[in-house]
Amino acid sequence: MHFASDNSGAALPEVLAAITEANDGYAMGYGDDVEMTQVTAKIRKIFEAPEAAVYLVSTGTTANSLALATLCDPWQTIFCTEVAHIHKDECNAPEFYTGGAKLTLAADKDVDKMTPASLRAAIEVEETRGVHGPQRGPVSITQVTEYGTVYTLAELTALCDVAKSYDLPVHLDGARFTNAMVALGCTPAEMTWKAGVDAVSFGGTKNGCMGVEAVIFFDPKHAWEFELRRKRGGHLFSKHRYLSAQMLGYLQDDVWIEAATKANANAAHLAGGLRALGATFKYPPQANMMFVALPRATHKRLLDAGAVYHLWDGTLEGDDAEMVTARLVCDWSLNKEVIDQFLDLAAGK
Amino acid sequence: MHFASDNSGAALPEVLAAITEANDGYAMGYGDDVEMTQVTAKIRKIFEAPEAAVYLVSTGTTANSLALATLCDPWQTIFCTEVAHIHKDECNAPEFYTGGAKLTLAADKDVDKMTPASLRAAIEVEETRGVHGPQRGPVSITQVTEYGTVYTLAELTALCDVAKSYDLPVHLDGARFTNAMVALGCTPAEMTWKAGVDAVSFGGTKNGCMGVEAVIFFDPKHAWEFELRRKRGGHLFSKHRYLSAQMLGYLQDDVWIEAATKANANAAHLAGGLRALGATFKYPPQANMMFVALPRATHKRLLDAGAVYHLWDGTLEGDDAEMVTARLVCDWSLNKEVIDQFLDLAAGK
Amino acid sequence: MHFASDNSGAALPEVLAAITEANDGYAMGYGDDVEMTQVTAKIRKIFEAPEAAVYLVSTGTTANSLALATLCDPWQTIFCTEVAHIHKDECNAPEFYTGGAKLTLAADKDVDKMTPASLRAAIEVEETRGVHGPQRGPVSITQVTEYGTVYTLAELTALCDVAKSYDLPVHLDGARFTNAMVALGCTPAEMTWKAGVDAVSFGGTKNGCMGVEAVIFFDPKHAWEFELRRKRGGHLFSKHRYLSAQMLGYLQDDVWIEAATKANANAAHLAGGLRALGATFKYPPQANMMFVALPRATHKRLLDAGAVYHLWDGTLEGDDAEMVTARLVCDWSLNKEVIDQFLDLAAGK
Amino acid sequence: MHFASDNSGAALPEVLAAITEANDGYAMGYGDDVEMTQVTAKIRKIFEAPEAAVYLVSTGTTANSLALATLCDPWQTIFCTEVAHIHKDECNAPEFYTGGAKLTLAADKDVDKMTPASLRAAIEVEETRGVHGPQRGPVSITQVTEYGTVYTLAELTALCDVAKSYDLPVHLDGARFTNAMVALGCTPAEMTWKAGVDAVSFGGTKNGCMGVEAVIFFDPKHAWEFELRRKRGGHLFSKHRYLSAQMLGYLQDDVWIEAATKANANAAHLAGGLRALGATFKYPPQANMMFVALPRATHKRLLDAGAVYHLWDGTLEGDDAEMVTARLVCDWSLNKEVIDQFLDLAAGK
Repeated sequence: MHFASDNSGAALPEVLAAITEANDGYAMGYGDDVEMTQVTAKIRKIFEAPEAAVYLVSTGTTANSLALATLCDPWQTIFCTEVAHIHKDECNAPEFYTGGAKLTLAADKDVDKMTPASLRAAIEVEETRGVHGPQRGPVSITQVTEYGTVYTLAELTALCDVAKSYDLPVHLDGARFTNAMVALGCTPAEMTWKAGVDAVSFGGTKNGCMGVEAVIFFDPKHAWEFELRRKRGGHLFSKHRYLSAQMLGYLQDDVWIEAATKANANAAHLAGGLRALGATFKYPPQANMMFVALPRATHKRLLDAGAVYHLWDGTLEGDDAEMVTARLVCDWSLNKEVIDQFLDLAAGK
Repeated sequence: MHFASDNSGAALPEVLAAITEANDGYAMGYGDDVEMTQVTAKIRKIFEAPEAAVYLVSTGTTANSLALATLCDPWQTIFCTEVAHIHKDECNAPEFYTGGAKLTLAADKDVDKMTPASLRAAIEVEETRGVHGPQRGPVSITQVTEYGTVYTLAELTALCDVAKSYDLPVHLDGARFTNAMVALGCTPAEMTWKAGVDAVSFGGTKNGCMGVEAVIFFDPKHAWEFELRRKRGGHLFSKHRYLSAQMLGYLQDDVWIEAATKANANAAHLAGGLRALGATFKYPPQANMMFVALPRATHKRLLDAGAVYHLWDGTLEGDDAEMVTARLVCDWSLNKEVIDQFLDLAAGK
Repeated sequence: MHFASDNSGAALPEVLAAITEANDGYAMGYGDDVEMTQVTAKIRKIFEAPEAAVYLVSTGTTANSLALATLCDPWQTIFCTEVAHIHKDECNAPEFYTGGAKLTLAADKDVDKMTPASLRAAIEVEETRGVHGPQRGPVSITQVTEYGTVYTLAELTALCDVAKSYDLPVHLDGARFTNAMVALGCTPAEMTWKAGVDAVSFGGTKNGCMGVEAVIFFDPKHAWEFELRRKRGGHLFSKHRYLSAQMLGYLQDDVWIEAATKANANAAHLAGGLRALGATFKYPPQANMMFVALPRATHKRLLDAGAVYHLWDGTLEGDDAEMVTARLVCDWSLNKEVIDQFLDLAAGK
Repeated sequence: MHFASDNSGAALPEVLAAITEANDGYAMGYGDDVEMTQVTAKIRKIFEAPEAAVYLVSTGTTANSLALATLCDPWQTIFCTEVAHIHKDECNAPEFYTGGAKLTLAADKDVDKMTPASLRAAIEVEETRGVHGPQRGPVSITQVTEYGTVYTLAELTALCDVAKSYDLPVHLDGARFTNAMVALGCTPAEMTWKAGVDAVSFGGTKNGCMGVEAVIFFDPKHAWEFELRRKRGGHLFSKHRYLSAQMLGYLQDDVWIEAATKANANAAHLAGGLRALGATFKYPPQANMMFVALPRATHKRLLDAGAVYHLWDGTLEGDDAEMVTARLVCDWSLNKEVIDQFLDLAAGK
């Protein structure tokens, strides 16, 4: 009963098999492996972007930071939500990689999404002070959001339109890219460049890889700068084939889509069960993550029984009847039986 | 016949097996995996350093840069050789991670080792200008050197003594740590803290891992700062168990020592064969890497036959009799037959 | 009729005289001038801080950035208001000098002051995420605030108490230090270390110097690091005596206090006159700066007549009756006649 | 008898007069003062560069660092001599402002000048390692050199030609620009853009200003980036007129040229006198600075008599007959009588 994070589960067997297969004989290092050639071709095809520059790194923080540093000058500010991973969970990595850029919060505290209005308002603040204020920089959108909701294509497009109206580039933090894509039933292209996105952190780790994320620039003009930034950040793997192989295993057939489909289905099953118990959600669960309020007594029962997850606000101390919100994340490796066991416990059965 | 680098060969079967074994069920992320507990205990035992702070990262550039940034203020300078990886091959990663420190070259161009005299002279240069010049910072020693030689324990100790006489910390770039250790027939402790080393980049990747390096601080006071630097550099793996498992597989039994022993033996066999053909070496090959001068015609014959390696100075164009130096590196996965095939070709058989 | 800024007026005659006097013969450079010895002694005496480390730089942005960088690690976040100069008006200088620290806004948009509650809430946000979130760093308080109000000693102490309860250092941005001190009728010590402030940007430029600010650390342990940061920031003057002389001229007798007293009196006279005309203020004007709403027609009349000042929100376009807020700043070099002329114009006389 | 540095002497009376004249009434801040308009026009005229972007900062380290940061990416390396101010005397300011670029030494230890051959060799080192090594960046030439010699126009042109053949920009550190220009008897244009220089640190401080240096880019495309870098470095003066006024006073009539002419004449008189005493020079004194070997006994006599200057290598301890090199710098404010007094003392009269 592990719902702590989608980075706690095992890697997909196809990913491990690809690693094993790649571990044969010699391969040139530093991205010149044949597997990487296949990865680039595959991602360009999937994204319908034959010119795209494609790179692999090992963590989401790296993908975000390097992509943003490539798009953002040190005297600029990045627009994002208050709950964005780049703001709250990367120990100032974007500030470090950009050489001291700022992050401007374009959504209120605890709000999952930017809106065109909130984004525009944030951008406007930086308007009229010449050299004195931070200069306007990229917009970074998180999809799936940090609260488990998913921007619709119309919402994404509207945000990108605002950015474009100020001539600002758009970055998509897609740590849970495929979960969002499956939730929307759209194509990778529709969720990115067709909506106006310029660069994507295309996550693999949370959806069944060991540790690999792709960074995709739809305009290849960014390629060489990114390669230099990756190298001096220490993120260019010498035995690069083990990154490539993971991504190859992940993207072959429909492994990546099936994994996200299963994770989302797990979450839907869990959310349905909890809703049936009368539980309420902070935001509508739309992908593989939810924030659900349950009585303290229920949490105690679940955690005592070995369930693993994070309490989001509040602690176990105090009145048993009081509600405390938990974050529950479902990965591909969960199954209906475990979820039902959890729901039974929650129901007090 | 692949002698291009020890990062071109396959990973050790024990490493892959450990990855596979670790891929079972859920594990807490970000270094809280049970495998990491075992790694820390193992490394502390191997190094006879029960208090040491131990961390894993995925590349050598990262290990060096994060270790040095922890030891070096931005207004200081790091002392190293002209051929050091941190100077020539990391695209200014140390300068980036330290926030703009300098590297001072304490050995002449193309020289493999610092000497106490050359180190002392370099340190003295920075002596008398107060706030104006760069301040003296850590000494970084590469062992195995970039030219395939190995500092003796006496040499290491003498360099550390110079550093200590100026109260400067010492970092050891041990990308090929085990190859050096095997060459010297010494213990990890003897080659590090007993000689005066404060922090080590303990390489796994070049000796049979997929991509893992340990950073070891013998004084744990550096632990928290390192953890923060690792995180904001994007180097803290969420599914950290896959780093830990590699290192566990590598360190179990004597896998790591046997791999380096085999690599060194491969190199000795190769060097012996080349020497028998009359070839000369830029520096005495003492571990698993050599720089050997061969006639252009020999290079052409070898490369035409499919041998893979780097020419170090010069090109294939010109007089066939002229000597061109090649870098040849042997990893654990080579074997005597392949080397003999290479030697036969070199001999023109 | 110049109310645009207190950095638009001429320098005090005493400051210019001191420069002229210092321009005699040879002086050792880089802060070793005899004038600096006098400045240090004078500031230590004024602040009743015989151990304080005292430095001079030429701009307020520099004073703030270097002081904060000395107090703040790159992985930390600085707590300040949304309207703070360090956040809005320094083009990311604090982010640059700290090597990529973050600024956390501990007051709502357009709010002049932090409160103990808003500061505590902001600090608490960063509490429970270990290495993932930014670490808590210094608190930076602006006195006079950017909206022309002045923290009382009780307010300052309460904010410092919150900071101290989390073991965080406190920086005071005193670009208008003396205006605040005069407004409060307190001593420099009361407004700083006695309230709990650790480091001060003690402004001279806005109160009649040409370009000099002191940075004062009450704990001299920060001295050497500051000196190195100043040098590598390019802020150590070779002909340092011209910085020292300004500060000497400024601090001799009660020149600095009289200048601020006059500036505040000018502002009080102006505010009184405007209030008599029925004008309203965004915040109560408590030092030498005010934000006053006037009808567009009034602004047009004033600006047409040659008055110089900034409209804070809104423009001159639109209905003449509509109110637009202006920022009016009074420096020491204004006088009652000019202010009365301005008030007559505002009154439509 | 002060020969310690040309930053120890008083400012020119014309500079002080210009400051005093500028201190009249209100002036817009941050470079929008009318004096700056005049400075820009004057410098463009002097340099025959009607499109040049012109900025003022207060120290030479700032001028160099901001100019180089504008020309140099963080992953590049700057080519300079071992004795360059940017390498030895700025506490890593170029590394800081560039965000971690490297400096590559293109001349041997203690050598005053780069040659086309030494520059080309240094550039070639960085050639063939793709993303791994630092990338080639700007060439920075110091004129007057740190050893008091002056590059001829032919030498300057030859260095720029090498840089251009690799498509690298050229920066001129002209802390003693006018001393060099006077020594060569050439125009500012000949010593800069006509020779191939792209950006100049045009020093005022060492030649009689209080603290002002111009940064000049002959291609105005760098203007906006420079303005942002200047601001976030804390180097944009609010009361900017006091920088502008210094430069105006300095450039009016031929004040700047006369000051350098006098400083050089002082040095020539001093060098001639020393040579007549049999003294030898490390390098031929060609501007206003020399490195001269004198017996210890002579140094003792001079210093005892109150002469002020720096010993460059060695100390006063030991055999009186042994030679120790001193650095002697002459500024505009010296005169023949003082020099003759010094020479008499040196002669033992």
